[in-house]
Amino acid sequence: MNSNFIHTYVSVDCVVFGFDHENRLNILLVERHLDEKRQIKLPGSLIFSDEDVDDAAQRVLHELTGIKKMILKQFKCFADPMRANNENDIKWMGMEYKHHIDRIITVAYLSLCKIDHKINSTKYSTVDWFPVDEVPSLPFDHNKIINESLVEVRKWIELDFSIIFELLPKKFTIRQLYQLYSALSEKYIDIKNFHKKISSFSYIVPLDEIETNVSHRAARYYKFDAKIYKKNNTKLIK
Amino acid sequence: MNSNFIHTYVSVDCVVFGFDHENRLNILLVERHLDEKRQIKLPGSLIFSDEDVDDAAQRVLHELTGIKKMILKQFKCFADPMRANNENDIKWMGMEYKHHIDRIITVAYLSLCKIDHKINSTKYSTVDWFPVDEVPSLPFDHNKIINESLVEVRKWIELDFSIIFELLPKKFTIRQLYQLYSALSEKYIDIKNFHKKISSFSYIVPLDEIETNVSHRAARYYKFDAKIYKKNNTKLIK
Repeated sequence: MNSNFIHTYVSVDCVVFGFDHENRLNILLVERHLDEKRQIKLPGSLIFSDEDVDDAAQRVLHELTGIKKMILKQFKCFADPMRANNENDIKWMGMEYKHHIDRIITVAYLSLCKIDHKINSTKYSTVDWFPVDEVPSLPFDHNKIINESLVEVRKWIELDFSIIFELLPKKFTIRQLYQLYSALSEKYIDIKNFHKKISSFSYIVPLDEIETNVSHRAARYYKFDAKIYKKNNTKLIK
Repeated sequence: MNSNFIHTYVSVDCVVFGFDHENRLNILLVERHLDEKRQIKLPGSLIFSDEDVDDAAQRVLHELTGIKKMILKQFKCFADPMRANNENDIKWMGMEYKHHIDRIITVAYLSLCKIDHKINSTKYSTVDWFPVDEVPSLPFDHNKIINESLVEVRKWIELDFSIIFELLPKKFTIRQLYQLYSALSEKYIDIKNFHKKISSFSYIVPLDEIETNVSHRAARYYKFDAKIYKKNNTKLIK
Protein backbone atom coordinates (compact mmCIF):
# COMPACT_ATOMS: atom_id res chain seq x y z
CA MET A 1 0.00 0.00 0.00
CA ASN A 2 1.15 3.51 -0.75
CA SER A 3 1.13 4.94 2.75
CA ASN A 4 0.87 8.44 1.30
CA PHE A 5 -2.84 7.99 0.71
CA ILE A 6 -5.16 8.94 3.50
CA HIS A 7 -7.03 6.19 5.36
CA THR A 8 -9.30 7.96 7.77
CA TYR A 9 -12.37 8.20 9.91
CA VAL A 10 -15.23 10.30 8.57
CA SER A 11 -17.74 12.21 10.67
CA VAL A 12 -20.70 14.49 10.14
CA ASP A 13 -21.28 17.75 12.03
CA CYS A 14 -24.57 19.65 12.05
CA VAL A 15 -25.18 23.38 12.35
CA VAL A 16 -28.84 23.83 13.35
CA PHE A 17 -30.14 27.40 13.07
CA GLY A 18 -32.99 28.97 15.01
CA PHE A 19 -34.31 32.54 15.20
CA ASP A 20 -35.00 33.85 18.68
CA HIS A 21 -37.49 36.39 20.09
CA GLU A 22 -34.80 39.05 20.22
CA ASN A 23 -34.29 38.75 16.44
CA ARG A 24 -30.98 36.93 16.63
CA LEU A 25 -29.80 33.87 14.73
CA ASN A 26 -28.98 31.05 17.15
CA ILE A 27 -27.37 27.65 16.77
CA LEU A 28 -27.71 24.44 18.77
CA LEU A 29 -24.63 23.31 20.68
CA VAL A 30 -24.06 20.29 22.93
CA GLU A 31 -21.71 19.51 25.81
CA ARG A 32 -18.75 17.18 25.82
CA HIS A 33 -17.02 16.06 29.02
CA LEU A 34 -13.26 15.80 29.34
CA ASP A 35 -11.37 15.42 32.66
CA GLU A 36 -14.46 16.67 34.52
CA LYS A 37 -14.43 19.81 32.43
CA ARG A 38 -17.36 20.62 30.24
CA GLN A 39 -16.94 22.08 26.82
CA ILE A 40 -19.50 22.88 24.18
CA LYS A 41 -19.26 21.73 20.58
CA LEU A 42 -21.30 21.13 17.45
CA PRO A 43 -23.42 17.98 17.49
CA GLY A 44 -21.85 15.28 15.34
CA SER A 45 -20.80 11.65 15.04
CA LEU A 46 -18.46 9.29 13.21
CA ILE A 47 -20.34 7.56 10.42
CA PHE A 48 -20.95 3.81 10.57
CA SER A 49 -19.42 1.45 8.05
CA ASP A 50 -22.78 0.72 6.42
CA GLU A 51 -24.04 4.32 6.52
CA ASP A 52 -24.19 7.07 3.89
CA VAL A 53 -23.28 10.56 5.12
CA ASP A 54 -26.81 11.98 4.61
CA ASP A 55 -28.22 9.16 6.77
CA ALA A 56 -25.59 9.82 9.44
CA ALA A 57 -26.56 13.51 9.51
CA GLN A 58 -30.25 12.65 9.78
CA ARG A 59 -29.38 10.28 12.67
CA VAL A 60 -27.37 13.00 14.47
CA LEU A 61 -30.26 15.48 14.09
CA HIS A 62 -32.71 12.93 15.48
CA GLU A 63 -30.44 12.08 18.44
CA LEU A 64 -30.07 15.83 19.00
CA THR A 65 -33.68 17.02 18.88
CA GLY A 66 -35.96 14.00 18.94
CA ILE A 67 -37.50 15.31 15.70
CA LYS A 68 -37.90 12.50 13.17
CA LYS A 69 -37.33 14.27 9.87
CA MET A 70 -35.57 17.63 9.82
CA ILE A 71 -34.75 19.70 6.77
CA LEU A 72 -31.02 19.41 6.07
CA LYS A 73 -28.44 20.34 3.49
CA GLN A 74 -24.90 19.07 3.09
CA PHE A 75 -22.65 22.07 2.56
CA LYS A 76 -18.98 21.18 2.78
CA CYS A 77 -16.37 18.55 3.54
CA PHE A 78 -13.75 19.90 5.97
CA ALA A 79 -10.50 17.98 5.56
CA ASP A 80 -7.64 20.15 6.77
CA PRO A 81 -4.93 17.63 7.84
CA MET A 82 -4.47 19.65 11.06
CA ARG A 83 -8.16 19.96 12.03
CA ALA A 84 -8.08 17.24 14.70
CA ASN A 85 -4.57 17.36 16.10
CA ASN A 86 -5.27 19.36 19.23
CA GLU A 87 -4.26 17.27 22.27
CA ASN A 88 -7.63 17.62 24.01
CA ASP A 89 -9.53 16.72 20.85
CA ILE A 90 -7.44 13.55 20.34
CA LYS A 91 -7.97 12.64 24.02
CA TRP A 92 -11.71 13.19 23.81
CA MET A 93 -12.01 11.12 20.61
CA GLY A 94 -10.10 8.28 22.33
CA MET A 95 -12.67 8.31 25.16
CA GLU A 96 -15.72 8.77 22.96
CA TYR A 97 -14.82 6.28 20.23
CA LYS A 98 -12.41 3.96 22.13
CA HIS A 99 -9.70 4.35 19.54
CA HIS A 100 -6.73 6.55 18.82
CA ILE A 101 -7.80 8.92 16.04
CA ASP A 102 -5.34 11.47 14.75
CA ARG A 103 -6.97 12.53 11.52
CA ILE A 104 -10.64 12.85 10.77
CA ILE A 105 -12.54 14.32 7.88
CA THR A 106 -15.96 15.81 8.53
CA VAL A 107 -18.92 16.52 6.28
CA ALA A 108 -20.86 19.54 7.53
CA TYR A 109 -24.63 19.98 7.32
CA LEU A 110 -27.06 22.86 7.74
CA SER A 111 -30.43 22.45 9.36
CA LEU A 112 -33.19 24.81 10.49
CA CYS A 113 -35.54 24.57 13.46
CA LYS A 114 -38.34 26.73 14.86
CA ILE A 115 -36.82 27.93 18.13
CA ASP A 116 -39.94 27.15 20.18
CA HIS A 117 -39.91 23.51 19.10
CA LYS A 118 -39.39 21.22 22.08
CA ILE A 119 -35.88 19.68 22.04
CA ASN A 120 -35.98 16.08 23.22
CA SER A 121 -32.47 14.70 22.81
CA THR A 122 -32.02 10.94 23.08
CA LYS A 123 -28.22 11.26 23.29
CA TYR A 124 -27.09 14.52 24.85
CA SER A 125 -27.81 15.57 28.44
CA THR A 126 -27.33 19.23 27.54
CA VAL A 127 -28.50 20.87 24.32
CA ASP A 128 -28.69 24.67 24.19
CA TRP A 129 -29.37 27.51 21.78
CA PHE A 130 -26.53 30.05 21.48
CA PRO A 131 -26.78 33.38 19.64
CA VAL A 132 -24.35 33.12 16.73
CA ASP A 133 -22.30 36.13 17.81
CA GLU A 134 -21.92 34.79 21.37
CA VAL A 135 -20.45 31.41 20.46
CA PRO A 136 -17.20 30.88 22.44
CA SER A 137 -14.08 29.07 21.22
CA LEU A 138 -15.04 25.50 20.27
CA PRO A 139 -13.04 22.27 19.72
CA PHE A 140 -11.69 21.11 16.34
CA ASP A 141 -12.53 23.59 13.53
CA HIS A 142 -16.11 24.03 14.76
CA ASN A 143 -15.87 27.83 14.83
CA LYS A 144 -14.72 27.80 11.21
CA ILE A 145 -17.57 25.45 10.27
CA ILE A 146 -20.07 27.82 11.93
CA ASN A 147 -18.61 30.86 10.15
CA GLU A 148 -18.88 29.14 6.78
CA SER A 149 -22.38 27.88 7.57
CA LEU A 150 -23.58 31.48 7.88
CA VAL A 151 -22.56 32.13 4.28
CA GLU A 152 -24.18 28.86 3.21
CA VAL A 153 -27.53 29.43 4.93
CA ARG A 154 -27.72 32.76 3.11
CA LYS A 155 -27.04 31.08 -0.24
CA TRP A 156 -29.59 28.40 0.56
CA ILE A 157 -32.29 31.03 1.11
CA GLU A 158 -31.19 32.92 -1.97
CA LEU A 159 -31.71 29.78 -4.07
CA ASP A 160 -34.94 28.82 -2.35
CA PHE A 161 -36.72 31.59 -0.44
CA SER A 162 -39.24 29.11 1.03
CA ILE A 163 -36.45 27.90 3.37
CA ILE A 164 -36.72 31.12 5.40
CA PHE A 165 -40.16 30.12 6.68
CA GLU A 166 -38.66 27.10 8.47
CA LEU A 167 -37.25 29.62 10.96
CA LEU A 168 -40.51 31.49 11.61
CA PRO A 169 -43.61 30.48 13.59
CA LYS A 170 -46.46 29.14 11.44
CA LYS A 171 -48.18 32.50 11.65
CA PHE A 172 -45.91 35.51 11.57
CA THR A 173 -46.01 39.27 11.03
CA ILE A 174 -44.21 41.01 8.17
CA ARG A 175 -42.05 42.70 10.81
CA GLN A 176 -40.85 39.30 12.02
CA LEU A 177 -40.05 38.25 8.44
CA TYR A 178 -38.24 41.57 7.93
CA GLN A 179 -36.18 41.11 11.07
CA LEU A 180 -35.20 37.57 10.13
CA TYR A 181 -34.33 38.72 6.62
CA SER A 182 -32.21 41.56 8.06
CA ALA A 183 -30.39 39.14 10.37
CA LEU A 184 -29.51 36.98 7.37
CA SER A 185 -28.80 39.69 4.82
CA GLU A 186 -25.47 41.36 4.25
CA LYS A 187 -26.96 44.75 3.52
CA TYR A 188 -29.55 47.09 4.98
CA ILE A 189 -32.99 46.98 3.42
CA ASP A 190 -35.62 49.67 3.92
CA ILE A 191 -38.72 48.29 5.67
CA LYS A 192 -41.13 50.17 3.36
CA ASN A 193 -39.50 48.68 0.26
CA PHE A 194 -39.54 45.32 1.97
CA HIS A 195 -43.30 45.56 2.63
CA LYS A 196 -43.88 46.51 -1.01
CA LYS A 197 -41.79 43.60 -2.30
CA ILE A 198 -43.38 41.08 0.07
CA SER A 199 -46.92 42.15 -0.78
CA SER A 200 -46.21 41.17 -4.40
CA PHE A 201 -45.56 37.56 -3.32
CA SER A 202 -48.80 35.61 -3.59
CA TYR A 203 -47.41 32.77 -1.46
CA ILE A 204 -47.34 35.00 1.65
CA VAL A 205 -50.99 34.89 2.60
CA PRO A 206 -52.69 37.32 5.03
CA LEU A 207 -54.76 35.73 7.82
CA ASP A 208 -57.90 37.07 9.52
CA GLU A 209 -55.96 37.54 12.70
CA ILE A 210 -53.94 40.33 14.27
CA GLU A 211 -51.49 40.48 17.17
CA THR A 212 -52.87 40.86 20.69
CA ASN A 213 -51.24 42.22 23.85
CA VAL A 214 -48.67 44.31 22.05
CA SER A 215 -47.61 47.85 22.94
CA HIS A 216 -47.22 48.94 19.30
CA ARG A 217 -49.97 48.95 16.67
CA ALA A 218 -51.21 45.38 16.29
CA ALA A 219 -49.97 43.84 13.04
CA ARG A 220 -51.65 41.28 10.83
CA TYR A 221 -50.50 37.67 10.84
CA TYR A 222 -49.48 35.91 7.62
CA LYS A 223 -48.78 32.33 6.64
CA PHE A 224 -46.54 30.78 4.01
CA ASP A 225 -48.30 28.78 1.28
CA ALA A 226 -45.87 26.16 -0.10
CA LYS A 227 -48.20 25.10 -2.93
CA ILE A 228 -48.41 28.60 -4.40
CA TYR A 229 -44.65 29.00 -3.95
CA LYS A 230 -43.90 25.80 -5.88
CA LYS A 231 -45.89 27.03 -8.87
CA ASN A 232 -43.41 29.88 -9.37
CA ASN A 233 -40.45 29.01 -11.53
CA THR A 234 -36.94 29.79 -10.58
CA LYS A 235 -34.84 31.59 -13.11
CA LEU A 236 -31.10 31.76 -13.61
CA ILE A 237 -31.14 35.50 -14.21
CA LYS A 238 -32.40 37.72 -11.44
CA MET B 1 -12.11 -0.03 18.52
CA ASN B 2 -15.72 -0.11 17.55
CA SER B 3 -15.44 -1.76 14.14
CA ASN B 4 -18.80 -0.30 13.18
CA PHE B 5 -17.22 3.04 12.43
CA ILE B 6 -15.98 3.59 8.92
CA HIS B 7 -12.24 3.78 8.29
CA THR B 8 -11.86 4.58 4.65
CA TYR B 9 -10.00 6.00 1.71
CA VAL B 10 -11.17 9.38 0.43
CA SER B 11 -10.94 10.57 -3.16
CA VAL B 12 -11.90 13.62 -5.18
CA ASP B 13 -13.62 13.51 -8.57
CA CYS B 14 -13.92 16.47 -10.92
CA VAL B 15 -16.66 17.31 -13.41
CA VAL B 16 -15.23 19.88 -15.83
CA PHE B 17 -17.80 21.56 -18.07
CA GLY B 18 -17.23 23.08 -21.49
CA PHE B 19 -19.62 24.54 -24.08
CA ASP B 20 -19.05 23.40 -27.67
CA HIS B 21 -19.63 25.05 -31.06
CA GLU B 22 -22.85 23.09 -31.52
CA ASN B 23 -24.31 24.65 -28.36
CA ARG B 24 -24.00 21.56 -26.20
CA LEU B 25 -22.65 21.22 -22.67
CA ASN B 26 -19.67 18.86 -22.61
CA ILE B 27 -17.60 17.29 -19.85
CA LEU B 28 -14.01 16.07 -19.74
CA LEU B 29 -13.51 12.31 -19.32
CA VAL B 30 -10.33 10.24 -19.14
CA GLU B 31 -9.44 6.62 -19.92
CA ARG B 32 -8.66 3.86 -17.47
CA HIS B 33 -7.13 0.55 -18.57
CA LEU B 34 -8.26 -2.80 -17.18
CA ASP B 35 -7.39 -6.22 -18.69
CA GLU B 36 -6.48 -4.52 -21.96
CA LYS B 37 -9.92 -2.98 -22.10
CA ARG B 38 -10.32 0.75 -22.09
CA GLN B 39 -13.05 2.45 -20.15
CA ILE B 40 -13.76 6.12 -19.67
CA LYS B 41 -14.32 7.71 -16.26
CA LEU B 42 -14.29 11.02 -14.43
CA PRO B 43 -10.83 12.36 -13.59
CA GLY B 44 -10.03 11.88 -9.91
CA SER B 45 -7.55 10.69 -7.30
CA LEU B 46 -7.22 9.41 -3.76
CA ILE B 47 -6.17 12.26 -1.49
CA PHE B 48 -2.77 12.20 0.18
CA SER B 49 -2.39 11.97 3.94
CA ASP B 50 -1.15 15.55 4.20
CA GLU B 51 -3.59 17.02 1.68
CA ASP B 52 -6.85 18.93 2.09
CA VAL B 53 -9.63 17.97 -0.37
CA ASP B 54 -9.63 21.35 -2.14
CA ASP B 55 -5.88 20.99 -2.78
CA ALA B 56 -6.40 17.45 -4.08
CA ALA B 57 -9.06 18.69 -6.52
CA GLN B 58 -6.79 21.51 -7.72
CA ARG B 59 -4.02 18.91 -8.23
CA VAL B 60 -6.34 16.63 -10.24
CA LEU B 61 -7.43 19.56 -12.44
CA HIS B 62 -3.81 20.50 -13.06
CA GLU B 63 -2.82 16.90 -13.90
CA LEU B 64 -5.84 16.77 -16.20
CA THR B 65 -5.49 20.00 -18.17
CA GLY B 66 -2.06 21.47 -17.49
CA ILE B 67 -3.84 24.67 -16.42
CA LYS B 68 -2.36 26.03 -13.20
CA LYS B 69 -5.36 27.55 -11.47
CA MET B 70 -8.85 26.57 -12.54
CA ILE B 71 -12.10 27.80 -11.07
CA LEU B 72 -13.59 25.03 -8.92
CA LYS B 73 -16.39 24.42 -6.47
CA GLN B 74 -16.86 21.53 -4.09
CA PHE B 75 -20.44 20.35 -4.43
CA LYS B 76 -21.06 17.05 -2.65
CA CYS B 77 -19.58 14.13 -0.76
CA PHE B 78 -20.76 10.82 -2.25
CA ALA B 79 -20.59 8.08 0.39
CA ASP B 80 -23.04 5.33 -0.55
CA PRO B 81 -21.58 2.18 1.10
CA MET B 82 -22.15 0.32 -2.20
CA ARG B 83 -20.59 2.88 -4.55
CA ALA B 84 -17.29 1.03 -5.03
CA ASN B 85 -18.19 -2.63 -4.74
CA ASN B 86 -18.35 -3.48 -8.42
CA GLU B 87 -15.81 -6.25 -9.15
CA ASN B 88 -14.11 -4.34 -11.96
CA ASP B 89 -13.86 -1.17 -9.89
CA ILE B 90 -12.23 -3.05 -6.98
CA LYS B 91 -9.81 -4.74 -9.42
CA TRP B 92 -8.90 -1.42 -11.03
CA MET B 93 -8.33 0.29 -7.66
CA GLY B 94 -6.04 -2.62 -6.66
CA MET B 95 -3.94 -2.01 -9.78
CA GLU B 96 -3.99 1.77 -9.60
CA TYR B 97 -3.36 2.16 -5.87
CA LYS B 98 -1.62 -1.18 -5.06
CA HIS B 99 -4.03 -1.99 -2.29
CA HIS B 100 -7.32 -3.76 -1.79
CA ILE B 101 -9.95 -1.04 -1.41
CA ASP B 102 -13.55 -2.05 -0.87
CA ARG B 103 -15.07 1.20 0.31
CA ILE B 104 -14.20 4.69 -0.76
CA ILE B 105 -15.84 8.05 -0.17
CA THR B 106 -15.48 10.73 -2.81
CA VAL B 107 -15.81 14.50 -2.70
CA ALA B 108 -17.07 15.83 -6.03
CA TYR B 109 -16.05 19.14 -7.61
CA LEU B 110 -17.33 21.29 -10.45
CA SER B 111 -15.04 23.15 -12.77
CA LEU B 112 -15.48 25.16 -15.98
CA CYS B 113 -13.20 25.48 -18.99
CA LYS B 114 -13.35 27.33 -22.31
CA ILE B 115 -13.65 24.44 -24.78
CA ASP B 116 -10.97 25.83 -27.13
CA HIS B 117 -8.38 25.93 -24.34
CA LYS B 118 -5.49 23.57 -25.08
CA ILE B 119 -5.59 20.47 -22.85
CA ASN B 120 -2.09 19.45 -21.81
CA SER B 121 -2.46 16.57 -19.39
CA THR B 122 0.61 15.56 -17.36
CA LYS B 123 -1.06 12.34 -16.18
CA TYR B 124 -3.60 10.97 -18.64
CA SER B 125 -2.75 9.77 -22.16
CA THR B 126 -6.35 10.33 -23.28
CA VAL B 127 -8.54 13.26 -22.23
CA ASP B 128 -11.68 13.98 -24.28
CA TRP B 129 -14.72 16.22 -24.28
CA PHE B 130 -18.07 14.35 -24.32
CA PRO B 131 -21.46 15.99 -24.86
CA VAL B 132 -23.35 15.52 -21.57
CA ASP B 133 -26.22 13.61 -23.20
CA GLU B 134 -23.84 11.19 -24.95
CA VAL B 135 -21.96 10.02 -21.88
CA PRO B 136 -22.00 6.19 -21.76
CA SER B 137 -22.19 4.01 -18.64
CA LEU B 138 -19.22 4.86 -16.38
CA PRO B 139 -17.55 3.09 -13.44
CA PHE B 140 -18.45 3.65 -9.76
CA ASP B 141 -21.30 6.18 -9.36
CA HIS B 142 -19.77 8.56 -11.93
CA ASN B 143 -23.01 8.81 -13.94
CA LYS B 144 -24.86 9.82 -10.78
CA ILE B 145 -22.17 12.38 -9.95
CA ILE B 146 -22.52 13.88 -13.46
CA ASN B 147 -26.31 14.01 -13.19
CA GLU B 148 -26.12 15.84 -9.87
CA SER B 149 -23.38 18.15 -11.17
CA LEU B 150 -25.80 19.45 -13.82
CA VAL B 151 -28.17 20.65 -11.09
CA GLU B 152 -25.25 22.14 -9.18
CA VAL B 153 -23.73 24.07 -12.08
CA ARG B 154 -27.15 25.62 -12.61
CA LYS B 155 -27.35 26.67 -8.94
CA TRP B 156 -23.82 28.02 -9.10
CA ILE B 157 -24.74 30.30 -12.03
CA GLU B 158 -27.98 31.29 -10.32
CA LEU B 159 -25.99 32.46 -7.28
CA ASP B 160 -23.25 34.08 -9.32
CA PHE B 161 -24.11 34.88 -12.94
CA SER B 162 -20.48 35.87 -13.69
CA ILE B 163 -19.63 32.13 -13.67
CA ILE B 164 -21.40 31.66 -17.01
CA PHE B 165 -18.73 33.71 -18.81
CA GLU B 166 -16.08 31.10 -17.90
CA LEU B 167 -17.74 28.89 -20.54
CA LEU B 168 -17.78 31.49 -23.34
CA PRO B 169 -14.95 32.88 -25.49
CA LYS B 170 -13.59 36.23 -24.31
CA LYS B 171 -15.65 37.98 -26.98
CA PHE B 172 -19.06 36.52 -27.63
CA THR B 173 -22.36 37.37 -29.29
CA ILE B 174 -25.64 37.66 -27.38
CA ARG B 175 -26.83 34.63 -29.39
CA GLN B 176 -23.98 32.55 -27.97
CA LEU B 177 -24.84 33.70 -24.45
CA TYR B 178 -28.51 32.88 -25.11
CA GLN B 179 -27.68 29.41 -26.39
CA LEU B 180 -25.48 28.64 -23.39
CA TYR B 181 -28.17 29.98 -21.06
CA SER B 182 -30.76 27.80 -22.82
CA ALA B 183 -28.54 24.72 -22.51
CA LEU B 184 -28.28 25.34 -18.75
CA SER B 185 -31.82 26.48 -18.05
CA GLU B 186 -34.72 24.22 -17.19
CA LYS B 187 -37.26 26.28 -19.07
CA TYR B 188 -37.62 27.96 -22.45
CA ILE B 189 -36.83 31.63 -22.60
CA ASP B 190 -37.85 33.90 -25.46
CA ILE B 191 -34.82 35.38 -27.26
CA LYS B 192 -36.37 38.86 -27.50
CA ASN B 193 -36.99 39.00 -23.75
CA PHE B 194 -33.50 37.66 -23.23
CA HIS B 195 -31.99 40.47 -25.35
CA LYS B 196 -34.00 43.05 -23.40
CA LYS B 197 -32.89 41.64 -20.04
CA ILE B 198 -29.25 41.35 -21.09
CA SER B 199 -29.12 44.89 -22.44
CA SER B 200 -30.00 46.13 -18.94
CA PHE B 201 -26.81 44.54 -17.53
CA SER B 202 -24.05 47.15 -17.59
CA TYR B 203 -21.39 44.48 -17.09
CA ILE B 204 -22.04 43.02 -20.57
CA VAL B 205 -20.15 45.53 -22.66
CA PRO B 206 -20.55 45.93 -26.47
CA LEU B 207 -17.33 45.93 -28.52
CA ASP B 208 -16.58 47.81 -31.75
CA GLU B 209 -16.45 44.52 -33.60
CA ILE B 210 -18.92 42.32 -35.44
CA GLU B 211 -18.85 38.74 -36.70
CA THR B 212 -17.23 38.03 -40.06
CA ASN B 213 -17.75 35.13 -42.48
CA VAL B 214 -21.21 34.23 -41.21
CA SER B 215 -24.20 33.30 -43.37
CA HIS B 216 -26.71 35.09 -41.09
CA ARG B 217 -26.69 38.80 -40.26
CA ALA B 218 -23.39 39.59 -38.55
CA ALA B 219 -23.87 40.15 -34.82
CA ARG B 220 -21.97 42.42 -32.50
CA TYR B 221 -19.39 41.01 -30.08
CA TYR B 222 -19.59 41.68 -26.35
CA LYS B 223 -17.27 41.16 -23.40
CA PHE B 224 -17.90 40.53 -19.73
CA ASP B 225 -16.63 43.22 -17.31
CA ALA B 226 -15.93 41.61 -13.93
CA LYS B 227 -15.29 44.94 -12.19
CA ILE B 228 -18.70 46.36 -13.06
CA TYR B 229 -20.30 43.05 -12.10
CA LYS B 230 -18.69 43.06 -8.65
CA LYS B 231 -20.14 46.49 -7.88
CA ASN B 232 -23.66 45.06 -8.09
CA ASN B 233 -24.98 43.71 -4.84
CA THR B 234 -26.58 40.33 -4.52
CA LYS B 235 -29.90 40.21 -2.80
CA LEU B 236 -31.71 37.39 -1.03
CA ILE B 237 -35.03 38.21 -2.62
CA LYS B 238 -35.29 38.05 -6.39
